Amino acid sequence: MKKIVRKHGTERMSKIVIHNDIVYLCGQVGVSDTPLQDQAKEMLSRVDQLLEEAGTDKTRMLSATVYLSDMRYFTDFNKIWDAWAAPSAAPARACVEARIALPGLFCEVSVTAALP
Amino acid sequence: MKKIVRKHGTERMSKIVIHNDIVYLCGQVGVSDTPLQDQAKEMLSRVDQLLEEAGTDKTRMLSATVYLSDMRYFTDFNKIWDAWAAPSAAPARACVEARIALPGLFCEVSVTAALP
Amino acid sequence: MKKIVRKHGTERMSKIVIHNDIVYLCGQVGVSDTPLQDQAKEMLSRVDQLLEEAGTDKTRMLSATVYLSDMRYFTDFNKIWDAWAAPSAAPARACVEARIALPGLFCEVSVTAALP
Repeated sequence: MKKIVRKHGTERMSKIVIHNDIVYLCGQVGVSDTPLQDQAKEMLSRVDQLLEEAGTDKTRMLSATVYLSDMRYFTDFNKIWDAWAAPSAAPARACVEARIALPGLFCEVSVTAALP
Repeated sequence: MKKIVRKHGTERMSKIVIHNDIVYLCGQVGVSDTPLQDQAKEMLSRVDQLLEEAGTDKTRMLSATVYLSDMRYFTDFNKIWDAWAAPSAAPARACVEARIALPGLFCEVSVTAALP
Repeated sequence: MKKIVRKHGTERMSKIVIHNDIVYLCGQVGVSDTPLQDQAKEMLSRVDQLLEEAGTDKTRMLSATVYLSDMRYFTDFNKIWDAWAAPSAAPARACVEARIALPGLFCEVSVTAALP
């Protein structure tokens, strides 16, 4: 039986789940009520931190699902994302419009990555 | 070649897909036009049943994506979810607002889990 | 360390990511501003092409997340989907309403599949 490692768990969710060399992160957001650019950068910084804690990094991301609270953020969000994503190691990504837990949150991302 | 096992398949989808010790469930909902709390409990009960049929249970969930038809259900939904989720074995979760197939459906969840 | 293969990568995303015999496709859409039926067929045709390029096909799909820009397309979309999906090899699927990158896009799908 392959072990499941969970980090930063609450009764609701684990921020990090690791199984069979795959890392699953819970949906990451930035700081509510800050500008979209700041939220996106903070969100991606948290992804970096969690991936590092899991023992991997963004060059080994497999998939990402991006939720934007309003698709008019698409262009601005992508500027931040494109500057962040690893050159020639970007994940399979989907991006759709969906409102997030708080009205002041504009973006969220679900990520999976492989361990080295 | 690793075998793929499918259960409860139709021409549209399989309720359970198993491959390489990972279980993928199709999106689960409760009963349309019943109160949110009832729908959430029924939805999670169906997750339990399908995971059991697949040979695992909620203590081995890896990821969950929750869709709420209206984010005003967030708090009430989480009460049901938190009471259901396995203590210290909760999955990586994302939760966003998205309408579901029928107007009377308020929540849906996509789940992956590991076999023991 | 298991290798990650990426195809059709940009600074934003890779259309195909392969790791540990699992294929992850980036969100696929059809041609904007064409009718829903045409978009759905084109989208699924692109899924077929990418899966083939990855070395697998729709009979080995594991999961699919479908986003419809408006749930009133549900019935028409499903007619196209059901005719396309592999009989007795359909994936675990979820389908929710979410607007997509362009206003003229009505459907998008995220897919994972196993290699043979």
